[in-house]
Amino acid sequence: MQYHLNGFRAGDPELHPAAREQGEVPEVLDVLIVGCGPAGLTLAAYLAGFPEITTRIVERKAGPLERGQADGISCRSMEMFQAYGFADKVMAQGYDVRETTFWKPDAEDPSRITRNGWIPDVEEGLSEMPHMILNQARVHDMYLEVMEKSPSRLVPDYALQLVDLVVDDGAEEYPVTVTLERCDPGREGERVVLRARYVVGCDGARSQVRRAIGRELVGDSANHAWGVMDVLCNTDFPDIRRKSLIQSAEEGTLLIIPREGGYLVRFYIEVDKLNEGERVKSRNIQVEDLIGAAQRILRPYALDVKDVVWWSVYEIGQRLTDKFDDAEGDVLPHVFIAGDACHTHSPKAGQGMNVSMGDAFNLGWKLVSVLTGRAAPDLLRSYSEERQAVAQDLIDFDREWSRIISERPEGAGGDAPRFQEAFIKNGRYTAGMSVTYPPSALTGGAAHQGLARGFAIGARFHSAPVVRLADSKPIHLGHVIGVAARWTIFAFAPEEDRGLPGGAIAGLCDFLGSAGSPVLRVTPEGADPDAVIDLRAVFAAGVHDLAYEEMPEGLKPRKGRFGLMDHEKIFGTDPARDIYAMRGIDRAEGALVIVRPDQYVAHVLPTGDHAGLAAFFEGVFLSAR
Amino acid sequence: MQYHLNGFRAGDPELHPAAREQGEVPEVLDVLIVGCGPAGLTLAAYLAGFPEITTRIVERKAGPLERGQADGISCRSMEMFQAYGFADKVMAQGYDVRETTFWKPDAEDPSRITRNGWIPDVEEGLSEMPHMILNQARVHDMYLEVMEKSPSRLVPDYALQLVDLVVDDGAEEYPVTVTLERCDPGREGERVVLRARYVVGCDGARSQVRRAIGRELVGDSANHAWGVMDVLCNTDFPDIRRKSLIQSAEEGTLLIIPREGGYLVRFYIEVDKLNEGERVKSRNIQVEDLIGAAQRILRPYALDVKDVVWWSVYEIGQRLTDKFDDAEGDVLPHVFIAGDACHTHSPKAGQGMNVSMGDAFNLGWKLVSVLTGRAAPDLLRSYSEERQAVAQDLIDFDREWSRIISERPEGAGGDAPRFQEAFIKNGRYTAGMSVTYPPSALTGGAAHQGLARGFAIGARFHSAPVVRLADSKPIHLGHVIGVAARWTIFAFAPEEDRGLPGGAIAGLCDFLGSAGSPVLRVTPEGADPDAVIDLRAVFAAGVHDLAYEEMPEGLKPRKGRFGLMDHEKIFGTDPARDIYAMRGIDRAEGALVIVRPDQYVAHVLPTGDHAGLAAFFEGVFLSAR
Repeated sequence: MQYHLNGFRAGDPELHPAAREQGEVPEVLDVLIVGCGPAGLTLAAYLAGFPEITTRIVERKAGPLERGQADGISCRSMEMFQAYGFADKVMAQGYDVRETTFWKPDAEDPSRITRNGWIPDVEEGLSEMPHMILNQARVHDMYLEVMEKSPSRLVPDYALQLVDLVVDDGAEEYPVTVTLERCDPGREGERVVLRARYVVGCDGARSQVRRAIGRELVGDSANHAWGVMDVLCNTDFPDIRRKSLIQSAEEGTLLIIPREGGYLVRFYIEVDKLNEGERVKSRNIQVEDLIGAAQRILRPYALDVKDVVWWSVYEIGQRLTDKFDDAEGDVLPHVFIAGDACHTHSPKAGQGMNVSMGDAFNLGWKLVSVLTGRAAPDLLRSYSEERQAVAQDLIDFDREWSRIISERPEGAGGDAPRFQEAFIKNGRYTAGMSVTYPPSALTGGAAHQGLARGFAIGARFHSAPVVRLADSKPIHLGHVIGVAARWTIFAFAPEEDRGLPGGAIAGLCDFLGSAGSPVLRVTPEGADPDAVIDLRAVFAAGVHDLAYEEMPEGLKPRKGRFGLMDHEKIFGTDPARDIYAMRGIDRAEGALVIVRPDQYVAHVLPTGDHAGLAAFFEGVFLSAR
Repeated sequence: MQYHLNGFRAGDPELHPAAREQGEVPEVLDVLIVGCGPAGLTLAAYLAGFPEITTRIVERKAGPLERGQADGISCRSMEMFQAYGFADKVMAQGYDVRETTFWKPDAEDPSRITRNGWIPDVEEGLSEMPHMILNQARVHDMYLEVMEKSPSRLVPDYALQLVDLVVDDGAEEYPVTVTLERCDPGREGERVVLRARYVVGCDGARSQVRRAIGRELVGDSANHAWGVMDVLCNTDFPDIRRKSLIQSAEEGTLLIIPREGGYLVRFYIEVDKLNEGERVKSRNIQVEDLIGAAQRILRPYALDVKDVVWWSVYEIGQRLTDKFDDAEGDVLPHVFIAGDACHTHSPKAGQGMNVSMGDAFNLGWKLVSVLTGRAAPDLLRSYSEERQAVAQDLIDFDREWSRIISERPEGAGGDAPRFQEAFIKNGRYTAGMSVTYPPSALTGGAAHQGLARGFAIGARFHSAPVVRLADSKPIHLGHVIGVAARWTIFAFAPEEDRGLPGGAIAGLCDFLGSAGSPVLRVTPEGADPDAVIDLRAVFAAGVHDLAYEEMPEGLKPRKGRFGLMDHEKIFGTDPARDIYAMRGIDRAEGALVIVRPDQYVAHVLPTGDHAGLAAFFEGVFLSAR
């Protein structure tokens, strides 16, 4: 964590100096976010870091969520939380899913279940982050803290609901007119009308914003009923603190998700198949029915439920909208939808909150780039293009997964049940690692992929360990990215290069400091040299085989009011965990790996392809000078 | 982190339900702490976890510290911070000292310095925690947060100074009468008189509490002047972000300590030897003199100081009191002193804040044990006995270290300077690991030390990795200890023992559940079974070679209002990091390792020595039943 750049500042370094205090909702603003769920808060926390952008977030409810329904946090989301700065806290407070166990009917006595095996829940080396379980409300709290400590001091406006939204595509500056209505006691019905450059609907499956722009959730009706309950219980079932998929012979399927705090457990219980057109409400299912079903499935183990914290019964259904914005033809988007507002599905693969947050993380830096004038508004089209395809994948995955999980066991005593096989096969998907954006202005072609085979273009940057040269601190390379809407060039030096003049890294630094530099082109006068594009160099040698004093000045940029040298741009390899080997970097050639602000690999280029580097950023940025 | 034991509780799990809100300073109370430095806050944060004890902490200054002088946090202190729950935050915000480099005059040209070598700052495997540098004020903030979130909601009473303290050894209940005086504007001179069971003076080198009990700081006068400054600077000196000891030929010695945030650096600069009886004030040294000296020492490297955040000039001196309490003969102690109030020394070995916090961590659990009736008041004598010897060691160490660091280099081009050798030799000392309490009622004899050679009796419990059986979570065994004034029995099973009946662990559980149990004897009726003594079992097998369902019920204690099973008491070995090998556990016999609430090893016994276990705890605890 870097701070004190502009002089010593007492107190919590995470508490940024306030650029302003938040007053009443203004009449015009840059971004209005509707809905304080995971998508809305991910976006609000991102934008809050940019006080030059006026952002507000409104929520119909009277205050922050106290207990949420979602609880699964994928490795990918944890990587994102790391950028926001609260992954450590989630790790300290949440349940860390290390293993999944599988249970099926005992061959000798199918009325009893028996353990059929276990697997690591996350494939070895898939991410430096674990798969966590934590109440959604706590995740909200952490975003709210980021917002409160940001220079914008952003706080949600609660008890405000959207009643109307109109877009005037002809308007120059603030094309979206929004009418909000207060719903707090004593002020019900008071209206606030405002105009925004952009509105983002994160207002859930019944999204008013989605309706206002005429998009529809289209998909299957459901015919499976499932119950879910969070309980405090005692049991002699030995895997009560492991994620467990349990398939009984006659009583259906049970999924156990241990929860944070060491005692709480979530049960997903198959209740029954519904008939055509039947709704779950008509079954009048009570929590006692769920407990009874769980007890029957778990036999011969006993389950003694001491306290039911929350429970519900739901039908599985998969629905999706065809576009995530209001753009049509040449008209640019001004209204976006994210999260449940554009895709709904079953909760059992633990994807809902994660994909919703992923939507917002994709949109955040794009809004910043456009609103700060770094990029043309056309960039915003890529949000729907990229995320609608992700959601379509999710819907397809969930449909298949829901079908498999409800199948009857193929006969006791056989091989691994199909869901066990499916689970293993889908591990990368559920960890959030399967998202790969196709080629576009933001995602380069595969011509040079071979220089860095482990950094797949379009996929998320798979962090690996390195050692910082200036202070020998071991760090994870991906953790330098942050939530600054900043692009990163990771320059992996050829093996023989030690940073000296004549080498590839020195040549790159010369180019980036020259008149044709794509970095200088996009960096506003007076801004820090790394404000928009951040150059980091990684060497194949260890730190004791490198000399800091001989490194190019371009890797020690001068920043802030004192022009202080930043000493955190250069890394050596940890011989025990060699990033070149782990990520398939071409030792002879090195590689430039360009990473987007949302941690996705945008391009891989040869270290000497200065023209290619400049050309790629031409397609992303407007000129700042 | 365990929570939700007594039902779901929304919000931050670190925010405990309030037992009360803090009002005005009461007329009688259990513990009054004087002084909000590192010692006072370590103690206050400990006691705040016990709302049944009335604690207040007063401070002469008007508010919390904004910038402190101390900055070094030893590995040992980080282990303690882990117990308080904020080690992660210190790691995220502080500077992590990985290496120390040594510089000496160049053999070719002694007017230039040259690097003579580097060493890892902390010996491999010495602690799972790093050596950190962070402004003392931030450490204070973290303690204040623990206090604010505690069930006591403890907040310091600022602008209150001690003016009088009288002990009436004949008084039954509240023998210490204290007079405080307000020093906030408008209320200066208002007096508050209160009576306390115990008073702890953490009020610095000029301690009023020390004076009131007639103790004196005795020691050397100083004859070395050193300057210290925290600066923002640019330099081509390549180790500006590494801890560096630099000995020049003619210009003296410089110690560089990189600071938190990536830019700030501390310089300790030898100014000059003082004449007999001369005081540093008479030299009229200015910060420009310090900068000039640093520039001369660093030649041929350039130093461009952009901003001086703080600076000072001090004389080295070592002083100590003979006792840390007011006890005399048979009279029990009622007033204690801690930290700078009883020992002062030079700052350059980075020990001051650490030893002060260690004092308070030693005293905290003892006060809790006595005030909750678990132990007889005699226990409190051990505070001065144990900590005065630690301080004497510190004074001796500092005197030697100060001498070595100011020596002239033995001649350019020779071997490693003496301070380089001394630094390496003293690594364990400066990391805080050399403290070993001698045999006493709290520290057993060495008869069975061979069963667990890596857990030296009297030394701090050297944590090592294990895997929790119930959920396969890898954890550090020492991290289960916390700040609960609770003792721990770590029962290491013999290699063949899998927890089944007839084995050592099952036998131990039977004994601890029987009429002669030392655990039952000290646990109040209605309290959780692990409230006073916590039993944890470690097996030599990996978790997949153990069966949770076959483990003794004594390792799944029922707790809280629902009688919920605690699933976090049993551990397997991580084959890649085998705790038996790392800590020299006798594989054939196993071992019982008894650990004090302040993380020091109290005793090592054979797994079957039930009588020895009972006898040891007889010497510590009163009976609760």
